[in-house]
Amino acid sequence: MKLIFTKSNLLKGVGIVLKAVPTRTTMSILECILIDATANEIKFTANDMELGIETKIEGDIVEKGKIAIDAKIFSEIVRKLPDNDITIETDSNYNAIITCEKSMFNISGKAGDDFSYIPMIEKSKCITIPQFYLKEVINQTIFSIAANDNNKMMTGELFEVRDNELKVVALDGHRIAIRTIKLDGKADDIKVVVPGKTLNEISKILSNDVDAIVNIYFTNNHILFEFDNTIVVSRLIEGEYFKINQMLSSDYETKIFVNKKEFLNCIDRATLLIKENDKKPIIINVTDGSLELKVNSAIGSLNENIDISKEGKDIMIGFNPKFLIDALRVIEDEEISIYLVNSKAPCFIKDKEEKYIYLILPVNFNA
Amino acid sequence: MKLIFTKSNLLKGVGIVLKAVPTRTTMSILECILIDATANEIKFTANDMELGIETKIEGDIVEKGKIAIDAKIFSEIVRKLPDNDITIETDSNYNAIITCEKSMFNISGKAGDDFSYIPMIEKSKCITIPQFYLKEVINQTIFSIAANDNNKMMTGELFEVRDNELKVVALDGHRIAIRTIKLDGKADDIKVVVPGKTLNEISKILSNDVDAIVNIYFTNNHILFEFDNTIVVSRLIEGEYFKINQMLSSDYETKIFVNKKEFLNCIDRATLLIKENDKKPIIINVTDGSLELKVNSAIGSLNENIDISKEGKDIMIGFNPKFLIDALRVIEDEEISIYLVNSKAPCFIKDKEEKYIYLILPVNFNA
Repeated sequence: MKLIFTKSNLLKGVGIVLKAVPTRTTMSILECILIDATANEIKFTANDMELGIETKIEGDIVEKGKIAIDAKIFSEIVRKLPDNDITIETDSNYNAIITCEKSMFNISGKAGDDFSYIPMIEKSKCITIPQFYLKEVINQTIFSIAANDNNKMMTGELFEVRDNELKVVALDGHRIAIRTIKLDGKADDIKVVVPGKTLNEISKILSNDVDAIVNIYFTNNHILFEFDNTIVVSRLIEGEYFKINQMLSSDYETKIFVNKKEFLNCIDRATLLIKENDKKPIIINVTDGSLELKVNSAIGSLNENIDISKEGKDIMIGFNPKFLIDALRVIEDEEISIYLVNSKAPCFIKDKEEKYIYLILPVNFNA
Repeated sequence: MKLIFTKSNLLKGVGIVLKAVPTRTTMSILECILIDATANEIKFTANDMELGIETKIEGDIVEKGKIAIDAKIFSEIVRKLPDNDITIETDSNYNAIITCEKSMFNISGKAGDDFSYIPMIEKSKCITIPQFYLKEVINQTIFSIAANDNNKMMTGELFEVRDNELKVVALDGHRIAIRTIKLDGKADDIKVVVPGKTLNEISKILSNDVDAIVNIYFTNNHILFEFDNTIVVSRLIEGEYFKINQMLSSDYETKIFVNKKEFLNCIDRATLLIKENDKKPIIINVTDGSLELKVNSAIGSLNENIDISKEGKDIMIGFNPKFLIDALRVIEDEEISIYLVNSKAPCFIKDKEEKYIYLILPVNFNA
């Protein structure tokens, strides 16, 4: 095999497939990128058996062939080579000779036949959205998935298509994040749970361009994202997702309108007094026209007032500040509405059209 | 005590003295900043008993007094407060109440009397240089001090004044870095060893402005840096520094002229193949007009040629690539001269006027 690339094309392609290379594995073939130029195009593939990425790269095929080479060292070499044409050549012992200007690296590779290709996916059920929207909707919900594996279902996100809307849901037992996107055209009903890791990785390679689109295909066991010259295939999490509708409610006793930035900065300051692993809540006291935020810890105390508008009853309620900060950071609205029932019931931050809903459970506090 | 500051003045002052606050200590008073407004000016002081920093801050003194408060939490609070006037008030129990707009922090402090002021230094022997030069000369040598405490003298830098020149020397047993600055006016002869930690911290608060100057005062046990509204006092390392003159030599068998950036990038690529703690050297083979760099490790091999000019014998020599990279990164010259004797003798990278000299010991290799 002998291929010639520009550095920028090579760098971009390696960067994309690298997202599917596991950081720790006992199977050294999984740490490899497959370079496949057996046909008239050059494809790079990485596959950790859960998540697979394949991307086509522009380059000259001087001699056809394929090889699997260590992804990490290959990507580091490409990054540090001069900005010029890079040639990759293999010999019969699966050594890869990478040359650029007067620099020549020699790295041992593996036979391409040992590599697991990503599975073929039937392209029947499909939705199409701008890449930027998918990226956004992931970033606006992913922090609400569970960090540990105790409940597998909580490590994924629900992707539900109904009535030409895509609803994305993440929850970890303390909070729920929901985002809804209107779809163009008619789509089949779909309900799958996508691993959080897949979504994290794909959000890093999606474009910020609203005109670039991504096709998403669904089967019973897999989801496939197709965009630019790249396809990403991931297994789904099997089983029934949580019934979230029964956790949502539109009843409330208190409704607050508050400036998002002011509220966020105030909570952010409060966290200074709360050490990690310290379960200290912040206490929010809502009266007519005013929200008072209080925290009292071994380090010191903070009292701060924010001007608000209020409908309904006065209320005092405690929260884990991190959960409020996570939600407020990804809301674009300058003014937000918060709906409260009592100090034991979840609070809702949502807009009128319910394009976003953030549910956060309160915590106990000593008044 | 009651003081009013602008946020930016307060932030700047705290940032400066914070450099003398130890990260780990058993004496909680050392973790504090002393705010002293007993006279008609406001001074902030931090002192870890080796290194002390005092800076004057602009602000309104509504009521005189002093207090010591935890440096880390105080700096974090100031940083997160709104960009407006910040008031610091103390009560009789040494609580500090920090208010800004509608935000009010309450932090417990300590009596200022428990705090150790920085020592008074006799201002007799003095040199004056631009702050930027001092900052540069530190950054261009500090990487050559020893990382561990096995030999205390190697953890500091020699500051030697003679013939109206300041010479700064750092060495760790494998390499030496020397920088020389011409001084304006006449200066006394001086020879002291300054702790590396002091130099690291002071380089962070010195200005990049060549018009801003720093006065450096020397006594037998201390060094004092005076600049802007700040003084930095540090203990010296006691004892006789290494006799470096007998390690330097101007004899050579081979002299190379090479483009610094090309050489640096080439060595940088070679490090990809050398894992940390792996003592693999890079091998440099110098012949007429060409420098060949080779490395051969478990990961793979690299061969690269660089065009050079050469005087004298051919030579093959091995180096720890990190030592070459450290020196090359801080040399401003585009073309550099390297002087070699044989594969066992140190190499010298230096300019004609010897404003800089970098000595690096070679390592053994299997050809």
